Amino acid sequence: MSGRDAALRLHRGGKLAVASKVPLKTQRDLSLAYTPGVAEPCLEIKRNPDAAYDYTSKWNSVAIATDGTAVLGLGNIGAQASLPVMEGKALLFKKFADIDAYPICVNADEETFVETVASLEPTFGGINLEDLAAPHCFRVEEALKRRMKIPVFHDDQHGTAIVATAALTNALKVVGKKMPDARIAISGAGAAGTAIAKMLLRRNPRDVVICDSHGIITRDRADLNEYKNELARITNRQNASGTLADAMEGADVFIGVSAPGIVARKMVSSMAPDAIVFAMANPTPEIMPAEAKKAGAAVVASGRSDYSNQVNNVLAFPGVFRGALDCRARQITEKMKDAAADAIAGLVKKPTAEKIVPSVFEKVAPAVAKAVIKAR
Amino acid sequence: MSGRDAALRLHRGGKLAVASKVPLKTQRDLSLAYTPGVAEPCLEIKRNPDAAYDYTSKWNSVAIATDGTAVLGLGNIGAQASLPVMEGKALLFKKFADIDAYPICVNADEETFVETVASLEPTFGGINLEDLAAPHCFRVEEALKRRMKIPVFHDDQHGTAIVATAALTNALKVVGKKMPDARIAISGAGAAGTAIAKMLLRRNPRDVVICDSHGIITRDRADLNEYKNELARITNRQNASGTLADAMEGADVFIGVSAPGIVARKMVSSMAPDAIVFAMANPTPEIMPAEAKKAGAAVVASGRSDYSNQVNNVLAFPGVFRGALDCRARQITEKMKDAAADAIAGLVKKPTAEKIVPSVFEKVAPAVAKAVIKAR
Repeated sequence: MSGRDAALRLHRGGKLAVASKVPLKTQRDLSLAYTPGVAEPCLEIKRNPDAAYDYTSKWNSVAIATDGTAVLGLGNIGAQASLPVMEGKALLFKKFADIDAYPICVNADEETFVETVASLEPTFGGINLEDLAAPHCFRVEEALKRRMKIPVFHDDQHGTAIVATAALTNALKVVGKKMPDARIAISGAGAAGTAIAKMLLRRNPRDVVICDSHGIITRDRADLNEYKNELARITNRQNASGTLADAMEGADVFIGVSAPGIVARKMVSSMAPDAIVFAMANPTPEIMPAEAKKAGAAVVASGRSDYSNQVNNVLAFPGVFRGALDCRARQITEKMKDAAADAIAGLVKKPTAEKIVPSVFEKVAPAVAKAVIKAR
Repeated sequence: MSGRDAALRLHRGGKLAVASKVPLKTQRDLSLAYTPGVAEPCLEIKRNPDAAYDYTSKWNSVAIATDGTAVLGLGNIGAQASLPVMEGKALLFKKFADIDAYPICVNADEETFVETVASLEPTFGGINLEDLAAPHCFRVEEALKRRMKIPVFHDDQHGTAIVATAALTNALKVVGKKMPDARIAISGAGAAGTAIAKMLLRRNPRDVVICDSHGIITRDRADLNEYKNELARITNRQNASGTLADAMEGADVFIGVSAPGIVARKMVSSMAPDAIVFAMANPTPEIMPAEAKKAGAAVVASGRSDYSNQVNNVLAFPGVFRGALDCRARQITEKMKDAAADAIAGLVKKPTAEKIVPSVFEKVAPAVAKAVIKAR
């Protein structure tokens, strides 16, 4: 059976169900869980809205909200076609952090999307935004964070940034370099690239240069939206212009969150000695890991499970939400995200070129949750 | 332990969880249920949106959507305080029809509520509207039915009407009367009363007279909204005015979906011989069943589980949605609702004064689902 057939067969009938946490066998069970007993917790919550965290599943519920505008590497396939991804994500929340997450696939423009998600605040304890296109995703997240009193977290931005930062922390250890000496070239100025750049800048690298499909983002470019203009202000100390190849020349670190196959071997060869290459485009990386190695990279990571060093958001989001829910944080702050990255990096006691991040099966979420709560 | 304490204890931590329907033990499992395998069903659905019914849980998912404006008998307690009811309802969907239902508690005005629920169409296979105040609920249901291609069903209207109609069908058999001879007085012109009146009128009773808190609804009243004006046009053949007591005098049937304790014994005594009394206000009926019996009623029903003849929506909505989902109906039509009522009535082979409806534990939903599918 092909991978495609196996995947379709597994998906038949869907992946997600709901389940009861209480007995429902007798008339008495029904009279407690539904009318008339259910009126009691309703009245408690009416008196004190925070009691919803005690008497409902809100304390452990996360909406996985999307409009389907940037799904996996498939692009704008729409809300309906994104549902399998959101169901899959719900399973990961459950498996790795015992969180009850539910898909919220919204067929709407930006304004209605924000209105819809904001109005669902009573139902959930947190909002995981997923697969929203940039720059739309930045406006949506900002608006929802402003309006909502529960944590809002765009995983394609912050989950990716947390794991990439953790991986880079350990990769630098492997090659014996320090962040203040590192020149970093990023390919991709969408959700992930922007968040990675901002998170890394908080660690004071020597420089970050970020490229979109038109080349290096500089303060001279006239074609930038407000978010890329902000990147131009905070990256690229020399305001150097040029192509991705120019950005990579002499760089210590390449981080790709962009498009398949756009990095040639000679571009890796042009990097500084002991180069670190994270080629994270999915499912096909900017350069295949084996190619990057042949071109001289000392540490290579990708988004793929069939190579070592898989930089995968699932290392971050379950623990981040577990922590945020457990301490009833109203926001997931930059400090909490930074702590999550450090916690993930810290789980690899002796990083090597083949092991800069923990495996998802290594109980990562509890450590991340603990760090997030502490950093609150 | 008091009932209140038992109910609060049961609710601690909430009642609802999500669960996986597929294995998630190995890296291979993850690669099928999430990236990269999950891209395959996404692409299938992108090509053909109906494939969402094959490759996701949409075929079995129902939103229990509310704004909390008319929760149980508690009134407008808001979306947050309504969450325990919606979780409880989800458990009933699961237990009685194996449907995966999820609370959608929306903090919004009418327009935003409609927009929110409509935009969630990709996520769900059906919409159960719950605990919306009248007349607002009529506008919301109409708007959503117009906009959505999945079934929309306001349970407080139609679930109640279906079960009341089923119960009345059998009660008339018990007393040896026919619908065309029956004069019916209804107390309550909100969601339930309106839907009950309309459903019963399709069965051609001799007359239906419906009262709101100001008395009998007549074509002469100037204080009626558009929905009550419609009731005035289709009920009350003689256009008689008066109080609820006037409406009940000589009536064969009383159906109360209104307020506690508003029916005195002498009002029941004034009814026709072999009177049928459904006092369904929750949790305290218009008249307690024992009182109605003492006043001469031949058949008595209520909404309570501690008396015989509990007229409870849970007899209807699980089977109605099971049927609608199984045949992928785009609407739940009047014909389907009528068939559901007949199916419920038909489950009681020999109705008696103490048994006019089946128990919820008697596998009602499969029979209702079958009838709904057949009536499609």
